[in-house]
Amino acid sequence: MYIGIDVGGTNLKAGLVDENGKILAAERMPLGEFQGEGALANSLVDLAEAILQSSGTDLKDIRHVGIGIPGAVAGGDVLYTCNIPMRNVPLAELFQRRLDVPVLLENDANCAAVGEWICGAGRGAKDFVIITLGTGVGGGLILNGKLYTGGGIVGEVGHMVIEKNGEPCNCGRRGCWEAYASATGLIRMTKETMNEHPNSKLWAVTLENGGVDGRAAFQAAEREDAPAKALCKKYVEYLGAGVTNLVNILQPEILAVGGGIAGAPEALLMEPLRDLVARECYPRHAGKLPKIIPAELGNDAGIIGAALLHRAV
Amino acid sequence: MYIGIDVGGTNLKAGLVDENGKILAAERMPLGEFQGEGALANSLVDLAEAILQSSGTDLKDIRHVGIGIPGAVAGGDVLYTCNIPMRNVPLAELFQRRLDVPVLLENDANCAAVGEWICGAGRGAKDFVIITLGTGVGGGLILNGKLYTGGGIVGEVGHMVIEKNGEPCNCGRRGCWEAYASATGLIRMTKETMNEHPNSKLWAVTLENGGVDGRAAFQAAEREDAPAKALCKKYVEYLGAGVTNLVNILQPEILAVGGGIAGAPEALLMEPLRDLVARECYPRHAGKLPKIIPAELGNDAGIIGAALLHRAV
Repeated sequence: MYIGIDVGGTNLKAGLVDENGKILAAERMPLGEFQGEGALANSLVDLAEAILQSSGTDLKDIRHVGIGIPGAVAGGDVLYTCNIPMRNVPLAELFQRRLDVPVLLENDANCAAVGEWICGAGRGAKDFVIITLGTGVGGGLILNGKLYTGGGIVGEVGHMVIEKNGEPCNCGRRGCWEAYASATGLIRMTKETMNEHPNSKLWAVTLENGGVDGRAAFQAAEREDAPAKALCKKYVEYLGAGVTNLVNILQPEILAVGGGIAGAPEALLMEPLRDLVARECYPRHAGKLPKIIPAELGNDAGIIGAALLHRAV
Repeated sequence: MYIGIDVGGTNLKAGLVDENGKILAAERMPLGEFQGEGALANSLVDLAEAILQSSGTDLKDIRHVGIGIPGAVAGGDVLYTCNIPMRNVPLAELFQRRLDVPVLLENDANCAAVGEWICGAGRGAKDFVIITLGTGVGGGLILNGKLYTGGGIVGEVGHMVIEKNGEPCNCGRRGCWEAYASATGLIRMTKETMNEHPNSKLWAVTLENGGVDGRAAFQAAEREDAPAKALCKKYVEYLGAGVTNLVNILQPEILAVGGGIAGAPEALLMEPLRDLVARECYPRHAGKLPKIIPAELGNDAGIIGAALLHRAV
């Protein structure tokens, strides 16, 4: 058995995972304020020990602990993290000082890609790309039947410019895919549409939801609101631009779409997305289209993938 | 020893290549009008036999013949070609009916990538990307120390949209990188600049060159022509947008730039390109920059790579 830990922005989540990717027990704790690398390593050990205890598992039955980190890793070291102030921290070693078990580190989006590849949307594909539409747009690449890690910072597909000199992005560039295809981008465009259309049903939906969120466009479109329908179409065009780019560069067998927005109605998101890619992608010239499907594992993908990292290297 | 054959748009070129990628003998013949798949296979055999004869080599000393095809292949079959009307042709088998030697087929851009990886700009890199700036923008990917072939049609990096709803592209999309960063794109922008600036030195350079070509912008910029300098800057911004996208997605150790335009003066092309990527790419956050260098093998890359394909699979 394996333990997978997902170091998220607000929570640490851990699972006891079997060889088939089934989560047998789970624990979580708030990340809290960053108290230093030693404190973080201690929290990770506490979480692993809580899992062992609650499930009545012996440490010797754990083949390794896999940890997904929101940043870049190299071997057992964290090179840097996005939201937590860590630079060049030997996290695996710090963990093992307290708990003597093999530790594997990997980027969190890569862990999610591995989870979906082994147990979810990417099962059986030699080449698999997953994108995650959340606050940003993340990506993970399984190429030639292996997690592709390049020099440690890969799959930053959200920071692919699709509109030169377009919307500013947090990364410093302008016109990144993330600025349009993320939930954040959709919310921005939803607000713009609301301001242009004071009679749009987007207003009613927003009132019901308690604020503008990534669901409003789809909900109002389902109520046959014309501005919302146009907004959904525009969103899919932006989403499809980047997806088609990835298909043209990497031609995966399967491309999965995860994150909150992936839960939107098929007819408004995945169907028009597939149509657009089928119309525009280069492999269509040889009659080859990738399968484009929703991710399957939701928030569990990161834990499962971290636990099963050994199968993707 | 090996024979590598490059099936180009106008010529068939072949080389006798040793284990180190050295071309020991070379032959070429015009491609001519397409007379059918059997005739093409015969031409390829004729070329291989000419190589054997001119170099005094015995067929039994040839471990295989590698053939680079401008299109998609699967095993020994050509799935389709871009400029030659072939669909699902068992080319390796047709070749072997006359000449009993193992035959490897691969896309021509992939062959060039293999050549540069083994003997040129990409030597020693685990992850290597090459882009070719010619009539279009081609690409080849060596990932995890192997040629990445996906489903057979990969590395179409030129057909990555960088300006949504921008210039029309032959592929059917709008705003593809190729429409800006290819020689064709540069020539279009050069003509635009000339029309806007009747006093630009671009006019004199064009007269000397006998027409507008991909060199004019750089030549006039070297003569301190302001509109040409601005044009070169604009071109590098387009080029850099796509290069940075590729770095953010794949983070190769080395990214090589080939094709006619790569021969432009360092100070006007490669230096500002490196500066732009260093400023904008995502891996800079971890202090990791790819090496961005010119390709080294020129037109020989395809022959050498075809000959040494066995080392990239």
